[in-house]
Amino acid sequence: MNFASDNWAGAAPAVMSALARHNDGFSPAYGTDPLTDSVSATFNEIFEREVAVFFVATGSAANSLALASCAKPGGAIFCHSGAHIQVDECNCPEFMTGGNKLLSVKGPNGRFSADALREKMAQVPDGVVHHGQVASVSISQATECGTVYTLDEIGAIKDVCRSRSVPLHMDGARFANALVTLGCSAADMTWKAGVDLLSFGATKNGCWCAEAVVFFDLDAAKSFEYFRKRGGHLFSKSRFVAAQFEGYFQDDTWLTTASHANGMATRLAEGIRQAGGRTAWAVEANELFPILKRSQMEALQAAGAKLYEWPAEGLAEGHAPASDEVCVRLVTSFATTDEDVDAFLKVLSGTV
Amino acid sequence: MNFASDNWAGAAPAVMSALARHNDGFSPAYGTDPLTDSVSATFNEIFEREVAVFFVATGSAANSLALASCAKPGGAIFCHSGAHIQVDECNCPEFMTGGNKLLSVKGPNGRFSADALREKMAQVPDGVVHHGQVASVSISQATECGTVYTLDEIGAIKDVCRSRSVPLHMDGARFANALVTLGCSAADMTWKAGVDLLSFGATKNGCWCAEAVVFFDLDAAKSFEYFRKRGGHLFSKSRFVAAQFEGYFQDDTWLTTASHANGMATRLAEGIRQAGGRTAWAVEANELFPILKRSQMEALQAAGAKLYEWPAEGLAEGHAPASDEVCVRLVTSFATTDEDVDAFLKVLSGTV
Amino acid sequence: MNFASDNWAGAAPAVMSALARHNDGFSPAYGTDPLTDSVSATFNEIFEREVAVFFVATGSAANSLALASCAKPGGAIFCHSGAHIQVDECNCPEFMTGGNKLLSVKGPNGRFSADALREKMAQVPDGVVHHGQVASVSISQATECGTVYTLDEIGAIKDVCRSRSVPLHMDGARFANALVTLGCSAADMTWKAGVDLLSFGATKNGCWCAEAVVFFDLDAAKSFEYFRKRGGHLFSKSRFVAAQFEGYFQDDTWLTTASHANGMATRLAEGIRQAGGRTAWAVEANELFPILKRSQMEALQAAGAKLYEWPAEGLAEGHAPASDEVCVRLVTSFATTDEDVDAFLKVLSGTV
Amino acid sequence: MNFASDNWAGAAPAVMSALARHNDGFSPAYGTDPLTDSVSATFNEIFEREVAVFFVATGSAANSLALASCAKPGGAIFCHSGAHIQVDECNCPEFMTGGNKLLSVKGPNGRFSADALREKMAQVPDGVVHHGQVASVSISQATECGTVYTLDEIGAIKDVCRSRSVPLHMDGARFANALVTLGCSAADMTWKAGVDLLSFGATKNGCWCAEAVVFFDLDAAKSFEYFRKRGGHLFSKSRFVAAQFEGYFQDDTWLTTASHANGMATRLAEGIRQAGGRTAWAVEANELFPILKRSQMEALQAAGAKLYEWPAEGLAEGHAPASDEVCVRLVTSFATTDEDVDAFLKVLSGTV
Repeated sequence: MNFASDNWAGAAPAVMSALARHNDGFSPAYGTDPLTDSVSATFNEIFEREVAVFFVATGSAANSLALASCAKPGGAIFCHSGAHIQVDECNCPEFMTGGNKLLSVKGPNGRFSADALREKMAQVPDGVVHHGQVASVSISQATECGTVYTLDEIGAIKDVCRSRSVPLHMDGARFANALVTLGCSAADMTWKAGVDLLSFGATKNGCWCAEAVVFFDLDAAKSFEYFRKRGGHLFSKSRFVAAQFEGYFQDDTWLTTASHANGMATRLAEGIRQAGGRTAWAVEANELFPILKRSQMEALQAAGAKLYEWPAEGLAEGHAPASDEVCVRLVTSFATTDEDVDAFLKVLSGTV
Repeated sequence: MNFASDNWAGAAPAVMSALARHNDGFSPAYGTDPLTDSVSATFNEIFEREVAVFFVATGSAANSLALASCAKPGGAIFCHSGAHIQVDECNCPEFMTGGNKLLSVKGPNGRFSADALREKMAQVPDGVVHHGQVASVSISQATECGTVYTLDEIGAIKDVCRSRSVPLHMDGARFANALVTLGCSAADMTWKAGVDLLSFGATKNGCWCAEAVVFFDLDAAKSFEYFRKRGGHLFSKSRFVAAQFEGYFQDDTWLTTASHANGMATRLAEGIRQAGGRTAWAVEANELFPILKRSQMEALQAAGAKLYEWPAEGLAEGHAPASDEVCVRLVTSFATTDEDVDAFLKVLSGTV
Repeated sequence: MNFASDNWAGAAPAVMSALARHNDGFSPAYGTDPLTDSVSATFNEIFEREVAVFFVATGSAANSLALASCAKPGGAIFCHSGAHIQVDECNCPEFMTGGNKLLSVKGPNGRFSADALREKMAQVPDGVVHHGQVASVSISQATECGTVYTLDEIGAIKDVCRSRSVPLHMDGARFANALVTLGCSAADMTWKAGVDLLSFGATKNGCWCAEAVVFFDLDAAKSFEYFRKRGGHLFSKSRFVAAQFEGYFQDDTWLTTASHANGMATRLAEGIRQAGGRTAWAVEANELFPILKRSQMEALQAAGAKLYEWPAEGLAEGHAPASDEVCVRLVTSFATTDEDVDAFLKVLSGTV
Repeated sequence: MNFASDNWAGAAPAVMSALARHNDGFSPAYGTDPLTDSVSATFNEIFEREVAVFFVATGSAANSLALASCAKPGGAIFCHSGAHIQVDECNCPEFMTGGNKLLSVKGPNGRFSADALREKMAQVPDGVVHHGQVASVSISQATECGTVYTLDEIGAIKDVCRSRSVPLHMDGARFANALVTLGCSAADMTWKAGVDLLSFGATKNGCWCAEAVVFFDLDAAKSFEYFRKRGGHLFSKSRFVAAQFEGYFQDDTWLTTASHANGMATRLAEGIRQAGGRTAWAVEANELFPILKRSQMEALQAAGAKLYEWPAEGLAEGHAPASDEVCVRLVTSFATTDEDVDAFLKVLSGTV
């Protein structure tokens, strides 16, 4: 019953097997190997166009380096108030961008609307040097609340970006989970909707360490290798990342693992609902945030369930946790089993 | 005949096997897992004292973050003119340190002497704000020339550091190779000789991606986790690095692989000498820099040998490459075979 | 009727005269001149203890460099949501601190309470690397709303700082204006209340360009000259700043100019009240924010009054501007005359 | 006999008088005042084209911010080994540029040649990420050795810049002194010769604090105001700098003061030569570096002369100081008098 996080799992079998398969022999370092070329070609296929792909060490690095590539002196980056880049990356974005400021846009369900973005951006008008200048916009797909932006929502946000001539970045730490939810193509969810650069995360969905920055604007990618190297993020034995991606994409492994994780989350949510519970936000990917009685949480933990208590901010009255309630976070992954889910729900239904 | 670099190899069997062994099940993320604790304890044993160990993604990151932890405003970092941090890291040290300046100390054989360091440091006297202030000293062990500092040399450099109250950093990208050459303990080569913080590299010597910053001064390590995270270098599934280290240290794998690599380099050097050739610098680890006739290099390349032409700077007249000669770099690793060496020497001896 | 800003005035006669007086002859550069020594001694007298004083070019530089001197990797700086450092300095604080994040504390009247600070600080608990670490707290005295913290309020904020072991910075761009309002000593308003480092502004109150960072903790000041020089803020002909300070402090010029400015603001506020108007916040220094009918503002502007429309955020319903109203900012200075005030009030009273 | 530095003088009468003249009344802050417009127009006239001018606090700031505006991740800035930006600015350039590295080009007389530059630049080839990328070139005019680049020399350096597509920056801390030496126009010495951006210094030549960055490429200037503000270098009462420039340019004050300073240096040099002495480098501006017997230097100091001992690096044997000799630096300015020069030479000729 381990629902602590999707980064508590190891690597999916297809990924581990690809890693072992490519372990033998010599191969050029620093991303100049044939396997990297082959994986890059797969990225092109997935996105239905030529893209520029750069492997980096972590999701924080992917986000921060992507934002650094479009940073400006005195730049403002707009993101959700609960975005990972805003609250969970120890100022990596600020550091990598030479001090760009992350301005929080608010919105329910972990998403912000185009209108909310437009209004926030008005705080940084063009030509007023004291306030700095708009630099970029970042959305998370799936969000930190386990919800997913629709294509229309992304398109509307893109329009605001275009109106101020700034690029749209997507933090895709859980890209695959969002993708299988929407059921659209990777191209649909990114450049066709107006995304300019993407943090493509694979670690949480079945790799050890496979994160990439993907540029849809090849010109904008030209300096990126220098940003990456300046940040210490160019792996020497880079093929070990390429190998993971090969296994990840092979036979649609990534979609399968994401579907599985999402399915487990859905089952959990349904079980909780049947047990009379509710979740803080809609369950649209592989995270769910049930609001439980504190006694229920304690019973679950006593039974061995791993989960985190979570601050459930911004919930409407009536929906927010009552005084004897608590919001918890459950995360599922490729490694979550039906047995885990069943065991969890059984404990839950045995509590009052 | 692949002597291009030790980072062209994959992972040693013991490392790959440890990675596979620890793939199953759930484990806490971000370095809070039991395996990391166990590996940290091994570091303590190897260094014969309690140390603070932090995994990071690359050797450049290890160096730059270590130097960032002791950076000062207007700080000067002293290193060899050919040091990796000076010429091969795309300003990662400058960036991570908020603009510390790397001052090159010169010296033959890839090493600088305590005297040369003292003289260079005099360019940054205490209390002259225009010139900045001394911040740290970094030595590479083994050096970029494939040579190794003796313990006495390190001790003399440490004395200069102490006289100016700055820490001594060691870039140990090829730590194991230097260690087996000196035949001393890891403690002898580091803190007992005066090293304060260490980039402990394992990637080149048989891992996929296993680099660590090791602090011998635990107080100095207190902020380091923030430097690491701010740089995007805290792995989520951090156990995959811990697993590599477990395999690396198991049954002295690391010393075995390093000894093997060094031995291959020694054999190459002897064969070259017997063929009437010479090397630019003494062969003390797993790199050698033969000075060949250009025609020899071309014959070797035609026969499939992978090697790089190398700028042989600072060599005395008579020893430096003549007009029809060229200096090349050969690097050996755990994956280099006797057959590779034999084949290379056979081609060489067949040339004039 | 120029109430646009106190930085629209020139230099007060005593300041200009000191500048002319010290123009002749040669004097050591970079702050090593006798006049700087003499002015530093005056700072000691004013603060009733030995302080470390550093001249810098601007108030933004003073704030940002002060905060840089106590920055931490992943550091969080707490300030009011409307603080100058947060909204008006083009990310200079973020840049100078290597990417520290400014977290906004909310509170009415441009001030935040100790309780609000404590609650906000709880978002950055000790030991959670993802959220960074607390670095410093900054208050503005007087505030951007023209209000002033009481000594008790500062003391309570200091207690919160101490509980998390971070220094308390005061942005004193309008230090003198606040001081004469409180009627206490400069020592009372700073280190005796718990302030650790101070941006001491004199430009707005009668100098051309005279800003200083004042450290009450001499140890904490040790590296500051390097921060200043690294930021390009060490003047060569530094005595021209020293001269301004000499004139500024001579015969209590600075208190006289501040009293005058505050008095003009008070008169304006009273006149506005008598004309049936109100101000957004209490008038406690040399800024006031009347809420006027839009037609009144336009009449004043038509009559030649210089003033800025201002976003009056955070006002309670009933008090906030109605749909036909607008909040404006008026700033007075040493150069504001009774005639200016009379003229303004006359126009105002002639409107409906 | 004060020859310590040109920044030991105060402000020239025309400058002081302009400052006083513009002290009255209100004027918009932050460089939006009419006086700044008028001074900007004067810059256009002087440079015979439209330029973009930005006032900053210091010469270090001018250089560093100019270089920041054309910085690149992993960027290399090429300058003379003795350049002010390399040895006297406490890493301000490295800091402001996000860690660009200053690579020293060597050359006699404080100048480097186009060939030396080309050779050094070859160390940073295009497309090798480890070595970073070329970012800019900076020359000092006049140099730190008191010499001046000819227009042909600048043109040849410009050709190298163009061949690698990087801008050419000129550190003009002593711009006027070089200009009157060459006897050409300011346009000739800058953009017509290939200079792209200029640190225009006026402080040393008769102002209190008047430094500007001048862009000849208006597009390249577009972001500069944000760099300036982010560095804390936008003055609020900016007209006090504009006023100084007005006085500086009025009636060719700047050329007169520079001619005077240069003339004083020439007279000193001739007197030294007649007394059997020599200078380390040709005297082409307002600095000279006599090589004196140590006893002579001591006699001069005993007589009250202010001068600095100077490291005379890179001098040919026979020309370099002998064991009983010492190199000193003398700097003249608008404030140097014939009497100072006479007194100095009289003491010198009385010594053996």
